Amino acid sequence: MKKVLERSKLLQGGPPTSVVLATCVDKEGNTNIITLGMFMYISQKPPLVCIGVTDRRYSHKLIMEQGEFAINVPPVEIIDEMHQCGITSGRDIDKFKEHGLTPIAAQKIKSALIEECYGHLECRVWNHYECGDHTLIVGEVIAASADAEVLDENDNLVITKALPVIQKNWNYHTVIKT
Amino acid sequence: MKKVLERSKLLQGGPPTSVVLATCVDKEGNTNIITLGMFMYISQKPPLVCIGVTDRRYSHKLIMEQGEFAINVPPVEIIDEMHQCGITSGRDIDKFKEHGLTPIAAQKIKSALIEECYGHLECRVWNHYECGDHTLIVGEVIAASADAEVLDENDNLVITKALPVIQKNWNYHTVIKT
Repeated sequence: MKKVLERSKLLQGGPPTSVVLATCVDKEGNTNIITLGMFMYISQKPPLVCIGVTDRRYSHKLIMEQGEFAINVPPVEIIDEMHQCGITSGRDIDKFKEHGLTPIAAQKIKSALIEECYGHLECRVWNHYECGDHTLIVGEVIAASADAEVLDENDNLVITKALPVIQKNWNYHTVIKT
Repeated sequence: MKKVLERSKLLQGGPPTSVVLATCVDKEGNTNIITLGMFMYISQKPPLVCIGVTDRRYSHKLIMEQGEFAINVPPVEIIDEMHQCGITSGRDIDKFKEHGLTPIAAQKIKSALIEECYGHLECRVWNHYECGDHTLIVGEVIAASADAEVLDENDNLVITKALPVIQKNWNYHTVIKT
């Protein structure tokens, strides 16, 4: 039976989403981490991805000022660290130190990557649009890397090895083959 | 060990995504279905969602002309039908008839919804942006519904009941609680 959803529950009619950790950098070169449920691919040629970030977040300012960010994809093993990165602010703390994550150098951008994540997209801001209560930021992927163990022989991602985090209402899940 | 991904494999460093079925309507009121791997929430107030559609698809024309679409979220039970909707064109066939899906009336838009899907977001086109090889279409959710069985007592979606489809490289998975 179909149930009509009232206004405050409209988005419960939609799908779950992957959780990603975006990293970005301040003027002094310190990398911050933000937990995001808003991510989408939008183009293959050129390779473009979208994220949604509210301007109340410290990372919004850093991404806009420095014009770059990285997407780091966490495996279920680091759900607790991922969750903590979502409820603390880089204005107050160094999230790498505080939450026990390891920064590693990116290939082409200043922001550090998160070693404990299995995949990494290094992005330059390509455009941005104000959409309701979030800014939709489009990034061009200028470099990428992944843990060798989660790739097949053709360098395609095998998500049953990667075990990414899928959420709805911030309840965390991972994937299983159908 | 981190492996650098070459240009054609850059997006393998990213997360998997949900699969959704968008429905949209032609001038005569015939509803078409398109299978999409590009979906994102972008705003709570107002409720806005994004999809990515290439202008080579018949549905791109319909959504742009009629200014509306619905997001229907398929459960794993209809993976075959969902897959078929992605590899056929509504220019040639009626995908409901051809793939054994059932159209039901929406609350506020002309496009039919897909009964076999567990959740439905009825959207009016709010804005659109050209982003590389796809158009990023932002829709305002003006009505929504879901199968009563996949909602908890507060009308929040329980995805371990809904069993949505998660894909990377069009290999299909569903979710399991961590």
